[in-house]
Amino acid sequence: MIFKILAGDKQTKARCGELRLGHHSISTPVFMPVGTQGTVKTLTPQQLKETHTKIILCNAYHLCLRPGEQIIKQLGGIHKFMGWDGAIITDSGGYQIFSLSGLTRVSDKGVEFQSPVDGTRLFLTPERMMQIQNDIGADVIMPFDECVPYPCEKDRASVAVKRTLEWAGRCLTTHKNRQQTLFGIVQGSVFRELRIECARNLVEMNFEGYSIGGLSVGEGLLLMNEVLDYTVDYLPADKPRYLMGVGFPVDILNAVERGIDMFDCVVPTRNGRNGCAFTGTGRVKILNSQYKEDTAPLDQTCECYTCRNFSRAYLRHLFLTHEILGLALLSLHNIFFFQNLMQQVRESIVNGEFRDFKAAFLSRQSD
Amino acid sequence: MIFKILAGDKQTKARCGELRLGHHSISTPVFMPVGTQGTVKTLTPQQLKETHTKIILCNAYHLCLRPGEQIIKQLGGIHKFMGWDGAIITDSGGYQIFSLSGLTRVSDKGVEFQSPVDGTRLFLTPERMMQIQNDIGADVIMPFDECVPYPCEKDRASVAVKRTLEWAGRCLTTHKNRQQTLFGIVQGSVFRELRIECARNLVEMNFEGYSIGGLSVGEGLLLMNEVLDYTVDYLPADKPRYLMGVGFPVDILNAVERGIDMFDCVVPTRNGRNGCAFTGTGRVKILNSQYKEDTAPLDQTCECYTCRNFSRAYLRHLFLTHEILGLALLSLHNIFFFQNLMQQVRESIVNGEFRDFKAAFLSRQSD
Repeated sequence: MIFKILAGDKQTKARCGELRLGHHSISTPVFMPVGTQGTVKTLTPQQLKETHTKIILCNAYHLCLRPGEQIIKQLGGIHKFMGWDGAIITDSGGYQIFSLSGLTRVSDKGVEFQSPVDGTRLFLTPERMMQIQNDIGADVIMPFDECVPYPCEKDRASVAVKRTLEWAGRCLTTHKNRQQTLFGIVQGSVFRELRIECARNLVEMNFEGYSIGGLSVGEGLLLMNEVLDYTVDYLPADKPRYLMGVGFPVDILNAVERGIDMFDCVVPTRNGRNGCAFTGTGRVKILNSQYKEDTAPLDQTCECYTCRNFSRAYLRHLFLTHEILGLALLSLHNIFFFQNLMQQVRESIVNGEFRDFKAAFLSRQSD
Repeated sequence: MIFKILAGDKQTKARCGELRLGHHSISTPVFMPVGTQGTVKTLTPQQLKETHTKIILCNAYHLCLRPGEQIIKQLGGIHKFMGWDGAIITDSGGYQIFSLSGLTRVSDKGVEFQSPVDGTRLFLTPERMMQIQNDIGADVIMPFDECVPYPCEKDRASVAVKRTLEWAGRCLTTHKNRQQTLFGIVQGSVFRELRIECARNLVEMNFEGYSIGGLSVGEGLLLMNEVLDYTVDYLPADKPRYLMGVGFPVDILNAVERGIDMFDCVVPTRNGRNGCAFTGTGRVKILNSQYKEDTAPLDQTCECYTCRNFSRAYLRHLFLTHEILGLALLSLHNIFFFQNLMQQVRESIVNGEFRDFKAAFLSRQSD
């Protein structure tokens, strides 16, 4: 992995860079659609490519449950398995284990939990999670971390940070595959002291990039911004920074302003499947009766396949009749919208106009 | 509409032709995927085009319930509404009204039935059905007919034939839009006398093409073949013949052999969504555990997007995890398979080898 900062905003911490992962060249700040199960829901890799997506996020925890990392390895790795020739990052799935699994028992050794697929008891350790991600074969991988819910007592968050750090060290020791880039994950809930302790220790271990986890879990925009404000200052300027699980356009703009380079979120796909489209002037809830006879595309200025070919009235009809095509067309549009937003963000940083761009974008949003 | 026979098989009634509908040129025998609600389920028009589909079937009855024919007209007609620039045929939906609706009351005037969408009482007449199809604006439209279930007493089938003929006459009188081609529909269940009576009377009315309805409703392959054997002889050789709602590859081959030019069926899409793929060597039920680690495509010889890019193991994974992409990829493959079959059928007719082709195709099918 090579990361180069190409331009920095003068008024904010926003920066524009290039992330090279093998033969993949990715402009940052970058948005990574989520393909949990090895598919960005409803879309073919070809359609995904048309949204100008360069890198996606898969989930090692989900993929080790189904189909199993061994099968992905046998099939030639995750890129070949899912037919995606762009870059891929895998999350270790710590967040999913702690939020989705029943009867989780965590110890320093690892996590025992119940498989949500078939109820069997499973045990994952940092070492095993590295092996799984090695077999899956993404370009960037994440260490196994302990995620605490929000709100969380400081004592509990502190224990989780210590464990996350200890596990990060074990992941680093286990990590042998130089084709894959291992990031460190900063935890610490909304506690300044814990976040800084976590960041400092991870930086000492010298990861190739740094994720910020445990945000966008209910703490709200103001607290998230505050955590980013101080956490980013403890991360090296020359390494990529990835804010996990974020977010809506406004969250992304706020985080770019605070020096974040990478984002992933289910927002464009999940909202798309729920009939909610993002546009330059705010969200369109397509089942709303006001679109019944609307000949306009979702977004007048959008050049995605959906907007070039279909009216709001047709898309509404697809949702009313529960036709699957509707889910795909709105997902496609939303991802295109996010990628177009990131492209404009990058241009505005290069042109030294990020703040103006952000203000103008947000002022046009009706909701 | 212009229909030209380009080649006829010497051993059977199979023939190869060209159907011109406005600027659309369609080679026959042709398979028409079903897009009941104005979408061929799960696929974009672009994906549909890649299956070499030239014409699809929509359903006027479903479309008049939702979104309503007026909205489609306002949006510029069905082609523009759904973003499909190939040809479109609408079925009047007689079959759907009689099979889907509760509390149907039929009289010579028309049919009163309960809307399956909101339970309201609706009344459709042949005249109204012509108006609806005019507004929807497909290239080929169907008269309103009475469909009887199978099995059916001859008396009841006879009444339905008389009504179908009377309604066909009223549809012809009402039909004013010369941009649209109106077919006649032959009914008569499995009764030779009734089928012939219906065909003779329709031919006297001089329709531009003839559909055969009321088959593939449970009578079985042998009875269907028998009905086709005698019915086709009463239809003019220079007009297209359309066997409605048929079918599986074997049904299509048997009907081509008996002089049928056009087919529609939900088989490739419905089977695709159920995880069943058609291949040159028989059906693949993708959830079968034998495909767990199978690196091969669905069909080794297939050139569709799905087979060029994805393994059976990946497709199985998509179905196991209930991912929508799986439904689309199998639907796409199945339609491509059907269109490829029709292309081979046409070539075999031109080359005077239809019977050999049919025998070879069926012998390779393992199921």
